[in-house]
Amino acid sequence: MTGRGTASRDDSPAEPLGHLDALVRALRVLPGVGPRAAQRMALHLLQHDRDGARVLAAAIERAVEAVRHCERCNTFTEDSVCALCRSGKRDATQLCVVETPADLLMVEQTRAYAGLYYVLMGRLSPLDGIGPREIRLDRLIRRALDGTVREVILATNFTHEGEATAHTVGELLAARGLGVSRLARGVPVGGELEYVDSGTLAQALRERRPIGG
Amino acid sequence: MTGRGTASRDDSPAEPLGHLDALVRALRVLPGVGPRAAQRMALHLLQHDRDGARVLAAAIERAVEAVRHCERCNTFTEDSVCALCRSGKRDATQLCVVETPADLLMVEQTRAYAGLYYVLMGRLSPLDGIGPREIRLDRLIRRALDGTVREVILATNFTHEGEATAHTVGELLAARGLGVSRLARGVPVGGELEYVDSGTLAQALRERRPIGG
Repeated sequence: MTGRGTASRDDSPAEPLGHLDALVRALRVLPGVGPRAAQRMALHLLQHDRDGARVLAAAIERAVEAVRHCERCNTFTEDSVCALCRSGKRDATQLCVVETPADLLMVEQTRAYAGLYYVLMGRLSPLDGIGPREIRLDRLIRRALDGTVREVILATNFTHEGEATAHTVGELLAARGLGVSRLARGVPVGGELEYVDSGTLAQALRERRPIGG
Repeated sequence: MTGRGTASRDDSPAEPLGHLDALVRALRVLPGVGPRAAQRMALHLLQHDRDGARVLAAAIERAVEAVRHCERCNTFTEDSVCALCRSGKRDATQLCVVETPADLLMVEQTRAYAGLYYVLMGRLSPLDGIGPREIRLDRLIRRALDGTVREVILATNFTHEGEATAHTVGELLAARGLGVSRLARGVPVGGELEYVDSGTLAQALRERRPIGG
């Protein structure tokens, strides 16, 4: 019933969407957002939530303007030194090294750590050209050598890159006489051996702990 | 090695992230973006793409300001009448009814349709309180009764809601003497019977077409 449609359409005008197209393109800066998702997001904002969209635009602008890095721990903050570093209630002899502010928040949520942090804002990744200079390991070393820190806890991810980062950082700090530790690897809490990958199980076996006694 | 961590942490200050928190919350207006994804997006923008973030903020503001609905077909445009409706090259006797501007673009991409469109910007969904008045079916009827349209092609989705919308719209327009058609249902191009769901296969059987001649 659309027989007319077989006529050539090459001469039909492309719809010049302008600002809508620009919005779809701009949304692609968000991680994990491809062309389809960007289009869906743009149409949703314009059709259902223009107020929310305005709030989002303002929030982006304010955050980009105001958020910077803590001079002591390198995490995101709006002050020169973040509230956590300023707090007198943290144990300044412990320094936990994480890759990102999200990781810092995860460790905080455990409520099992009362020390301070250093946020690398990245990880060593030689294949991507990210070496010790790019993630400013010199700043971490200076921070760790403040004379108060006694133990540095390496809490980078247990990926290849995170492990390589932990190894490099650990060597640099241990050479300067600091105590260095790494998060324990092993079977997750609630984990069943049957469903744990064999690499993890092998580590849990090698790093078994004596009990009782 | 984190024995100190067992001390109570309830008195520790919550990090007042301010604009970063506000950005994470604001990102939740995007469809399909939960708390984790919003946090990942906010950190990504601030760490890796502040320029892209500024462009995004500006694009949102401009689109929210400039994009409105075409007076003829109801799709998004920056003019009172969109380029597609203004084009003299389209067949004004055919009107294709779709749910969203994204659906319009999908039909355009087929290059198999040379008529005009009407975009519902929604679908009937009685359970959500969306009836004929909410999606302004009166506007569609007025548009379809312009004296030029001869055939209305219902291209709403083949979901329950899309089918109900097609049914209602079809009845309203047929009662006013217009020709009404619906997109064909059936086995997808390239589809293998073994992997087609039985409902689709049953429809393809009922709606089989005579061939040869």
